[in-house]
Amino acid sequence: MALSATEIILGSAAIALIWALIQFSIIKKIPVADGSNTESSALSGASGEGSDETTARLNEIYTAIYEGADSFLKAEYAVCNIFVACFSIIVFLLVTWGTDYNVARGGFTAISFLLGAGTSMASGYLGMKVAVFSNVRTTVSAQKAGFTPCFNTAFRAGAVMGFALCGLGMLMLYVTMLVFKGYYPEPEDWRLLTESITGYGLGGSCIAMFGRVGGGIYTKAADVGADLVGKVVHGIPEDDPRNPATIADNVGDNVGDVAGMGSDLFGSFAEATCAALVIGSSIGVSGGWDAMLFPVAVSAVGVIVCLVCSFLATDIAPVRSEDGIEKALKIQLISTTILMVPAIYFAAEYLLPESFDLATAVGEGTVSLEPWMAWICVSAGVVGGLIIGLVTEYYTSHSYAPVREVANSCKTGAATNMIYGISLGYQSAVIPVLVLSIVIYKSFALCDLYGVALAAIGMLSNLSTGLTIDVYGPVCDNAGGIAEMAELHPSVREKTDALDAAGNTTAAIGKGFAIGSAALVSLALFGAFITRIRASSDDALFKDGVNMLEPLTFAFLLIGGMIPFWFAAMTMKSVGLAAMQMVMEVQRQFDEKPHLLDANPTERPDYDACIAISTQASLREMIAPGAMVIFTPLLTGLFFGVHAVSGLLVGALIASVQLAISMSNSGGAWDNAKKYIEKADANSELKGKGSDIHKAAVVGDTVGDPFKDTSGPALNIVMKLMAVLSLVFADTFYAINEGKGIFNLS
Amino acid sequence: MALSATEIILGSAAIALIWALIQFSIIKKIPVADGSNTESSALSGASGEGSDETTARLNEIYTAIYEGADSFLKAEYAVCNIFVACFSIIVFLLVTWGTDYNVARGGFTAISFLLGAGTSMASGYLGMKVAVFSNVRTTVSAQKAGFTPCFNTAFRAGAVMGFALCGLGMLMLYVTMLVFKGYYPEPEDWRLLTESITGYGLGGSCIAMFGRVGGGIYTKAADVGADLVGKVVHGIPEDDPRNPATIADNVGDNVGDVAGMGSDLFGSFAEATCAALVIGSSIGVSGGWDAMLFPVAVSAVGVIVCLVCSFLATDIAPVRSEDGIEKALKIQLISTTILMVPAIYFAAEYLLPESFDLATAVGEGTVSLEPWMAWICVSAGVVGGLIIGLVTEYYTSHSYAPVREVANSCKTGAATNMIYGISLGYQSAVIPVLVLSIVIYKSFALCDLYGVALAAIGMLSNLSTGLTIDVYGPVCDNAGGIAEMAELHPSVREKTDALDAAGNTTAAIGKGFAIGSAALVSLALFGAFITRIRASSDDALFKDGVNMLEPLTFAFLLIGGMIPFWFAAMTMKSVGLAAMQMVMEVQRQFDEKPHLLDANPTERPDYDACIAISTQASLREMIAPGAMVIFTPLLTGLFFGVHAVSGLLVGALIASVQLAISMSNSGGAWDNAKKYIEKADANSELKGKGSDIHKAAVVGDTVGDPFKDTSGPALNIVMKLMAVLSLVFADTFYAINEGKGIFNLS
Repeated sequence: MALSATEIILGSAAIALIWALIQFSIIKKIPVADGSNTESSALSGASGEGSDETTARLNEIYTAIYEGADSFLKAEYAVCNIFVACFSIIVFLLVTWGTDYNVARGGFTAISFLLGAGTSMASGYLGMKVAVFSNVRTTVSAQKAGFTPCFNTAFRAGAVMGFALCGLGMLMLYVTMLVFKGYYPEPEDWRLLTESITGYGLGGSCIAMFGRVGGGIYTKAADVGADLVGKVVHGIPEDDPRNPATIADNVGDNVGDVAGMGSDLFGSFAEATCAALVIGSSIGVSGGWDAMLFPVAVSAVGVIVCLVCSFLATDIAPVRSEDGIEKALKIQLISTTILMVPAIYFAAEYLLPESFDLATAVGEGTVSLEPWMAWICVSAGVVGGLIIGLVTEYYTSHSYAPVREVANSCKTGAATNMIYGISLGYQSAVIPVLVLSIVIYKSFALCDLYGVALAAIGMLSNLSTGLTIDVYGPVCDNAGGIAEMAELHPSVREKTDALDAAGNTTAAIGKGFAIGSAALVSLALFGAFITRIRASSDDALFKDGVNMLEPLTFAFLLIGGMIPFWFAAMTMKSVGLAAMQMVMEVQRQFDEKPHLLDANPTERPDYDACIAISTQASLREMIAPGAMVIFTPLLTGLFFGVHAVSGLLVGALIASVQLAISMSNSGGAWDNAKKYIEKADANSELKGKGSDIHKAAVVGDTVGDPFKDTSGPALNIVMKLMAVLSLVFADTFYAINEGKGIFNLS
Repeated sequence: MALSATEIILGSAAIALIWALIQFSIIKKIPVADGSNTESSALSGASGEGSDETTARLNEIYTAIYEGADSFLKAEYAVCNIFVACFSIIVFLLVTWGTDYNVARGGFTAISFLLGAGTSMASGYLGMKVAVFSNVRTTVSAQKAGFTPCFNTAFRAGAVMGFALCGLGMLMLYVTMLVFKGYYPEPEDWRLLTESITGYGLGGSCIAMFGRVGGGIYTKAADVGADLVGKVVHGIPEDDPRNPATIADNVGDNVGDVAGMGSDLFGSFAEATCAALVIGSSIGVSGGWDAMLFPVAVSAVGVIVCLVCSFLATDIAPVRSEDGIEKALKIQLISTTILMVPAIYFAAEYLLPESFDLATAVGEGTVSLEPWMAWICVSAGVVGGLIIGLVTEYYTSHSYAPVREVANSCKTGAATNMIYGISLGYQSAVIPVLVLSIVIYKSFALCDLYGVALAAIGMLSNLSTGLTIDVYGPVCDNAGGIAEMAELHPSVREKTDALDAAGNTTAAIGKGFAIGSAALVSLALFGAFITRIRASSDDALFKDGVNMLEPLTFAFLLIGGMIPFWFAAMTMKSVGLAAMQMVMEVQRQFDEKPHLLDANPTERPDYDACIAISTQASLREMIAPGAMVIFTPLLTGLFFGVHAVSGLLVGALIASVQLAISMSNSGGAWDNAKKYIEKADANSELKGKGSDIHKAAVVGDTVGDPFKDTSGPALNIVMKLMAVLSLVFADTFYAINEGKGIFNLS
């Protein structure tokens, strides 16, 4: 058999989509009905008579969450659609103008932009639908004996999203390329083809920005609000059905942690691929179409590897006990990494010619590459990602010293908890940054910037598995919330809590992958930007690299370094503001409806008012940070020129990496320190739930919420989006005063 | 009259030293005795009979603080001396080896290193002595009617330090240069002369590092500990004499906020001057000795301007009311800035030739400069510093919206306070970074990197005033502590509190100056490093600048960006750890001595035990971060070479600026948000002291302590120290595999 890259990519995309459908059909078979008196139930303490009522309640909650999530996403996408429509015109006009009125390039870029944005929104919406659909079914499955049914349901929900997104992403990208190839048939023109394709990355990334920020503010406004309510209204737990913020909190998991994250990771995939294609477009000349498509083929191979490994979790070694959950998830990450390395080796040997030429980003001429070099770069990414993931686990799981130290610091109050948690976050960046530096040095030295792009693709190659696990977490979280609200037997909640706890740790690992790959992608995109300016300027600019001792470049290095801090400030404050509004609203409801807290309440909380607060806050507050990230590089390029943009991108990259890792890990550590204290016995040193120590830990957890779920992960997008945007508009920037911008500063 | 630069510098140094002596003799005249029944007392409620007892108590407290501070500084300097002795040998050997066994250069560099370190320790020690001497006298003066006597006492204490340090610094530097000039009489060799002088900056900076970190940990361990005691032992205020941590807290103000900061600012002065001299050494060839000395002459002019303006505060418009305090201090900063701009103009026109040549750091050849260009650069620094200072004030004073927002966020608890405070810090970096970028762009574009060095010198030109105000703060703080401990009339405490509150805001302004100038200094030092490598390699390296798209350079850009975060993590955690020990110790004392809290306690707290905890913690914990900052660039240069060092320095610079500004301002804002709430009425919205809102604010203040007084300001030193160290060892780095380091990586 002699498969071409085209066949591998299309085949893998088809398999991924079919596999997602199969997983979905398995979930679909689970009825939304109280399963507590079925024969398989060994747990239920409820008698059969409650069954119909519980079924109705389950359906009611499910519908409420669905409607909340659906209406929010529709509102969010309405805003996005306006933005996309306007911005696609800007893309078309500026790129056309920047390429000497080449309407084809402007048009192709704008079309890819629309496709990228559309696919991103579709991914997010699909993910939300699947998650909401599966939450309640996970709750139902948790009524059955053992951990296998409920774990598998949540895991399959993740797999639907993981495989559908990868399949869809590859398919759309490849088809678009094929269409453009009709216009650019000659290998010499493939540079222009790949440059038009960068619009796909930009579109994906713009939606990711709004999705991450909007969803992140939504979910954390509700979550922080619900946490703080415990302070204002004594003794009401987070998921208590009498808490008016509870439905908004559950909706938030679906729109933020599922839809937002789905768009984010789709953006990473799209940008990493675009970066590799642009930098490696010169490979097509000596190596042909298949060799140039190698980066996409790596993702295709990754999907198959992930699919094979997923059987380990659901069938070969199913989860049978609480301890098995985290193990099963970790085995997924490790096994895909182990299998990926040889798989990529064969793919490289098979798809790449024995030797092929690459135009270097910096300096003269071309380098001659061999398949093993490409393999080393991809593998560096794959293995580097796993190390970063495991270090993240060390810093955020309460099985290890760092989180326990944070938990112990709660003994002297919230202040020491804050000091220790922030230190932990800062410190946790040390090893990941060293790993990234090594990966960058090695891949860069071996295959120029193409190597860095390949490393990024490598780090994202087990994206299907990463997404599966990432979606698994909020599904379990929601399942627990539903169990609580439907007042199922406490044992159901205990089970979903166990599922959720494991998901917390693995979610942190996933964030490590995402941040690491974002740094590599940004560097690769920056390299592509430089390559493109070199080409536009006929080597007048950046031939010998990018000099950081230019006045403008250095000034913008500092400004770039400031952007992530500013962005984090904006998004955190938005969460704080919305959460405070949420608390006021809950307070108001309790004041107006004094019987809300009775054992058998005669009044019902107004869930919709809380949903409205989260919705309005996130739609209002996502505009400013999103606009800042999009317009900063655009205006910098237009007014100050390409030297300024270089500084801006590198400065933003450096600061974003550190801040994203430390914010995510501080947040994860605070969350798990709180959980560690909750698990402690009331007579033990940590005093357990409800003690002063626990209260100090709750402060940390609350501060950590926007750290880890709003600002931290959105910083990935900040660096990538700024880089891909500069790449798309590179020719335009150069066209103004030969890259000096409207101000024409020397 | 035709004054040479030499005469201006030596004259100004002499005037500064004499002026410091005069101020000291004025303070000395105030007797340490209870002045409450003197005729001028209009405040005292104490009857005459308490006088002798109070006098004895004042002397006792004064002695305890003095002994604590003295023994700590001696212990700290003992550690420093060991380090300085060992490191001077390393400097001598490595520089000698790196310059082809040129023993003169190794020896001169080592000697300047020793002199710099010695002067820095002398500055710190002197500052501490003056501060301790003046604290109690400020307390005594506060018993007199009106604000003029106590304000003037504290202000004069600051002036002793401010002028003595500047005078001493200039004198030592100039004399050393004069001695070296005997060996290097020819203008062509002055490059070597200035390069040897860089040891002076390195010595000053190393001690600054240990002083800032050691002192910072000392003071904040005691301060945070004392704050937290309020949680453990109900209702005991910070400065209550029954609180065993209280003397340690007061000692801390003197060793951290005075001695540590004195060493820090001496380091800034020394490094800025060295950077300007190295980059500008080529000016000597066409412009002569006087022109080359222009940067030192700017500082000399600055001293005189500051001296003149200081009369505004003490004599021309003395402080008569509480409102006048902050105004008087702000007038100092603004008036020195306004006067400095024309003064520098005349100095430039007078000292610089009509036109002179400067070898550019990057690119071919030389640029021809004129005096007005140098004036613009210095002025950009002077004015930029003031703008940064005023922005800092806006973000940290409770007269404006940002701090009030933070105070309001306390209504929903400590968590929202944290979120708002951290956001405020991040956001507060935006304008200062923009201002810095503009200053860098303008001065760099005008006078190459020499312009950046001049801007740094400009920003530090009113150092005497800055130091005066900086020392004024802790003196007032201590005066209040002494008043509390000596159980003077509450009105005395109210007065010192008013003095202290104004000092808090102006201290934040001072930090803004320090951070901004540190960024400029680091960039200038980095430029000097590049210049020196170019010279060593005969233009084989860095001729066209520093390419950030080198694999090693980019990898180390990321690593450099990580260093400040790691450093902040280490130092914050040290404070947290030491504070927890302090709390345990206080708890132990209260457990063992149950009568400690009686109205007329029969037992006395063991102050020494708390002093010992702070001392041991700071000596133990300052080693690791200090070593990290010193050895990271050294080992990077030795093993990975000069490209790696370039990346490291720039990465560290970018991240340090943002982190230093945001940590300092978050801390300042939390402190003042707490004070704002304390001032509120119990029936007002913010509920005032003792309420839940206030408790939430205290958490922020406690977290802010290490932010603003340990980690934040020490980050200045991180960036400067790494840069000056690389500059000192530049030849050594180049000597290993032609700048590729021991690993010889391409």
